[in-house]
Amino acid sequence: MKHVEFELNKEFRDRFQEALDARDGDFIRDSLQEVNPADITALLYEFNGEESKYVLDLLTLDVRARIINDLDADTRKNFLSNYTTEEITEVVNLLDSDDVADILNELPIKTSEEIIARLDADLMSQVIDLLRYDENVAGGLMAKELIKARDHWTVVQCVEEIRKQAENVTKFYAVYVVDDADKLLGRVSLQKLILSDPRTIVKDIFDEDVVAVETYMEDREVAEIMSKYDLESVPVVNVQGNLVGRITIDDVVDVITEQAEEERQLMSGITEDVEEDDSVWRNTRARLPWLLIGILGGMVSARFMGFFEMEIARITAIAFFIPLIQATGGNVGIQSSSLVVQSLASPGFVEEGLWKRLLKVFSVAILNGIFLSVVVFGITWLVFGYDSLNTVVSLALFFVVVFASFIGTVTPLILNRMGFNPALASGPFITTTNDLLGLAVYFFTIHILL
Amino acid sequence: MKHVEFELNKEFRDRFQEALDARDGDFIRDSLQEVNPADITALLYEFNGEESKYVLDLLTLDVRARIINDLDADTRKNFLSNYTTEEITEVVNLLDSDDVADILNELPIKTSEEIIARLDADLMSQVIDLLRYDENVAGGLMAKELIKARDHWTVVQCVEEIRKQAENVTKFYAVYVVDDADKLLGRVSLQKLILSDPRTIVKDIFDEDVVAVETYMEDREVAEIMSKYDLESVPVVNVQGNLVGRITIDDVVDVITEQAEEERQLMSGITEDVEEDDSVWRNTRARLPWLLIGILGGMVSARFMGFFEMEIARITAIAFFIPLIQATGGNVGIQSSSLVVQSLASPGFVEEGLWKRLLKVFSVAILNGIFLSVVVFGITWLVFGYDSLNTVVSLALFFVVVFASFIGTVTPLILNRMGFNPALASGPFITTTNDLLGLAVYFFTIHILL
Repeated sequence: MKHVEFELNKEFRDRFQEALDARDGDFIRDSLQEVNPADITALLYEFNGEESKYVLDLLTLDVRARIINDLDADTRKNFLSNYTTEEITEVVNLLDSDDVADILNELPIKTSEEIIARLDADLMSQVIDLLRYDENVAGGLMAKELIKARDHWTVVQCVEEIRKQAENVTKFYAVYVVDDADKLLGRVSLQKLILSDPRTIVKDIFDEDVVAVETYMEDREVAEIMSKYDLESVPVVNVQGNLVGRITIDDVVDVITEQAEEERQLMSGITEDVEEDDSVWRNTRARLPWLLIGILGGMVSARFMGFFEMEIARITAIAFFIPLIQATGGNVGIQSSSLVVQSLASPGFVEEGLWKRLLKVFSVAILNGIFLSVVVFGITWLVFGYDSLNTVVSLALFFVVVFASFIGTVTPLILNRMGFNPALASGPFITTTNDLLGLAVYFFTIHILL
Repeated sequence: MKHVEFELNKEFRDRFQEALDARDGDFIRDSLQEVNPADITALLYEFNGEESKYVLDLLTLDVRARIINDLDADTRKNFLSNYTTEEITEVVNLLDSDDVADILNELPIKTSEEIIARLDADLMSQVIDLLRYDENVAGGLMAKELIKARDHWTVVQCVEEIRKQAENVTKFYAVYVVDDADKLLGRVSLQKLILSDPRTIVKDIFDEDVVAVETYMEDREVAEIMSKYDLESVPVVNVQGNLVGRITIDDVVDVITEQAEEERQLMSGITEDVEEDDSVWRNTRARLPWLLIGILGGMVSARFMGFFEMEIARITAIAFFIPLIQATGGNVGIQSSSLVVQSLASPGFVEEGLWKRLLKVFSVAILNGIFLSVVVFGITWLVFGYDSLNTVVSLALFFVVVFASFIGTVTPLILNRMGFNPALASGPFITTTNDLLGLAVYFFTIHILL
C-alpha cells in the first residue's frame, strides 16, 4: 500500500535540476520509478518545455500520456510545440475521447487535422463527433467511452461486453441500458451485476430512474445536477433521447474549481484568465481595464467635487471625511452584492419576492446605518470636538449605507437577468459606482445642511 | 428513463401551498410520487418546519430519510426540533454512519445521546467511533461503511461479502484489501472482480498502488489529493495503517463548494457564515465587524489629513483627487492579493523565489503605474488645465500603484505563513490598509513637491 508520501521539496528539485543539466537519464528514471504520474506532473511545472520533454521521453508511453493529459491547457500548449505530430498522435491514441478532443482544441488547426487523420479508427470517429460541441456544454464535457447493454441481454452478455470494452473504458460505475434504437432506458450498477444470477435478463434488473443530461446543457448546470443528485457519472443524451456519451464526476470537479477561480477574478477586477506566473505583459494587460475604469471614476469624482470648491475652501475639514464615506460605501456594497451572488448560485433558488428581499435589505441597512452613524458621531465628537460637521458626516454615512446596500443588491440581480455572471457586480464595478454615489450623497447633505 | 424534468416554478409552489393549507394529503402524495427526493428537498426550503414535517410524514420512511439527509445543517437543525427522539432515530437508522454523525453533531447533546442509545448495534459503534473526530479532518468526513476483503480470499468470497454488505453500503467503487490485522494492502476495482475467474485469489489481482489518507488529514488536503489523483473514493487509515473508513467524491465536492463560499465571504468582509435569508439581526451582525474596521480606518485618515489642513486650505483641488488615489490603491491591492491567493491554492505550489516573485510584481506594478500616471496626467491637463498639481497627482498615483502591489502581494503570503486563510487578505483588510497608505503617499508627495 502506498500512502501519499511524495512531497516536492526544494532539495529534490535542485538535485533533479542538476541531473537534468547533466542529462543524467538513469538518475531521473530511477527517482521517478515509484512516483505517481500526478506528482510527476506537478514536478514538471518547475522546468521548461524542453527539459520536461527530456524527462517524459524517459518514461513509458502510458505514464507520458497520463501526464500530458494532466497538464493545464496553457502549459500543455507550450509544451506540445516541442513535439512532432507523430509523437502527439502516439500519446493521444491512449487517451479517452474527451481528453483527446480537449487537447486537439488547443492545437493549431493544421496540426490537429493531421493528428485526427492518424488516430485509431474508433477513437477518430468519437473525437470528430465530440469536436462539434462547444467546450462549455455537456457535449463538450462528455466522453464517448461507456458500456452500454441492450435491455434484452442477459447478465452474462453484459459482462462479456464489459470485458470487450474494458481496455478502452478506464473508469466506469454503471452499464447504461438502451433499446435497439440506442434510446437510453436506464442503468444497472456494477454492484447489481455482481450480485445477480448470470442468466437474469437486464430488463428485469435495470433501474429506470436515471437522471440524464442533454448535449446542449451548460457545464455549470451539469455540475449543479450532479452535485444535487449526488451522481458519480451521468449519461448524456441527444434531442432524440439517444445515449451519446457520459460525464464523470472528476470532470465536474474541474468545472466547479474553474468557476470558483473565475468568480474570484471577477470579484477582484482581473479581466483575463491570468496566473501569477504568466508573463509580466499579460499580467499588466489583465489588470489595466478595471484600473482604468477606476481612474475614470476618480476623475468624475474630482470633477464633481469641483462644484463644491467653495464649501471645501470654507470648511477644510469636509475633505477629511471623504475616505470614511467612500470606504464604507464600498464595503457595504461588496457585502450586499456577494450575498446576492451567493443566493443566486444556491440550487433551488426561486427568484421571487423582490419586494420582500428589498425590505429585508433595507432593514439590515438601516440597522447597520444607525449603528455606524452613532459610532462615527461619538468618535468625531470625542476626537474633533463638537461641530455641526459631525451631524452632517453621521447623517451622510447613514444614507450612504442605505444607498450602497440597495445598489449592491440590485446590480447583481440585474446582471443575472441580463445573462451576465452576477459575480461581476461584487468587483470594482460596485466599488466604482458606490464611490461616486457616496460622494454625491455626502456633498448634497453638506450642501443642504451646512 | 427519466430526464431532469422537474422544475420548481411559481405555479406549482402556489398550488402546493394551497394543498398544504387545506392539509390535502392526497394531492401532495400524488404530486410528489414521481419526483426525485433531491427535488423535494429543494421544494421544502419554501415552507416552514411544521409544513415540511407534514409533507415528509406523507412519504415513505426511505425517501424521508434521504431528504432529511440532504437538508443543509441550519435548516435541518430547525426542522428536527419538530421531531421526537423516536422519529429522528427511525430516520437516522437508515443513513450512512458519516451522515448520522453529522446530524447528531447538530442536535442538543441530550437528544443526541438518547438517539445513539437507540441506534442499531452496528451503526451505534460506527457512529460513536466517528464522533471522536473533528468535522474538518478526514476522520470526520469518512464513512465506516465499506467492503473489505482479506488478501487470501477468493473472488467468490469477495462477492459473497459484497452481497452481505450490499444493504448497508449504498455507494462503492472498489473492495479494499486488508491483511488479518486489518492493515490496508490495496484495492480491487469492481471492474476487475467482474472480469476475474471466481476462483482467483485476491492476492493475485489486487492493486497495491492505492492512495490513502490518514484520519487527521485536513479536509481541504483530502479534497486536493482526490482531485489531483482523480479518485472517486479514498480509503482512510489510522496511524497504524489500519483501514478505518472511506471518503467518497460527493463529500469532497461539498468541501470544495464550502471552501469557495468561505473564500467569497472572506473577500467581501462578512464575518459569519450567513445567507441572505437568515434573520435581519444575523445579517447585520455578520457585516458590522469589517464595517467598523473600515470606519476606524476612515477616522485615522481624517485625523491624518488634519495635519495637512493648511495645504488643503491653500489648494482646495488637493481634495478632489483623494477618491482617485484611494480607489486605485484599493483596486491594485485586491488584484495583487487575489492572484497570490490563487497561486497559493494551486496544487504543486512551492513557496520559493520570494525575490523572483517580488521582482515580477514590481515590474507589473511599474508598467501599470506608468500607464495610469500618463493617462491621469493627460486627463487632468485637458480637463483641469495645466497646473503643478497634475504632476503631483500623477507621481503620487505611480507610487500608490507600486506600494499597493507590494502590500497586496506580501499580506497573503504572511497570513498564509501564520496559518490564516490568505483569502482574508483580498477583503476589506487590504482595502483599509491601502486606503491609509495611498493617502499617506499622496500627502507626503504634496508636502515635498508643492
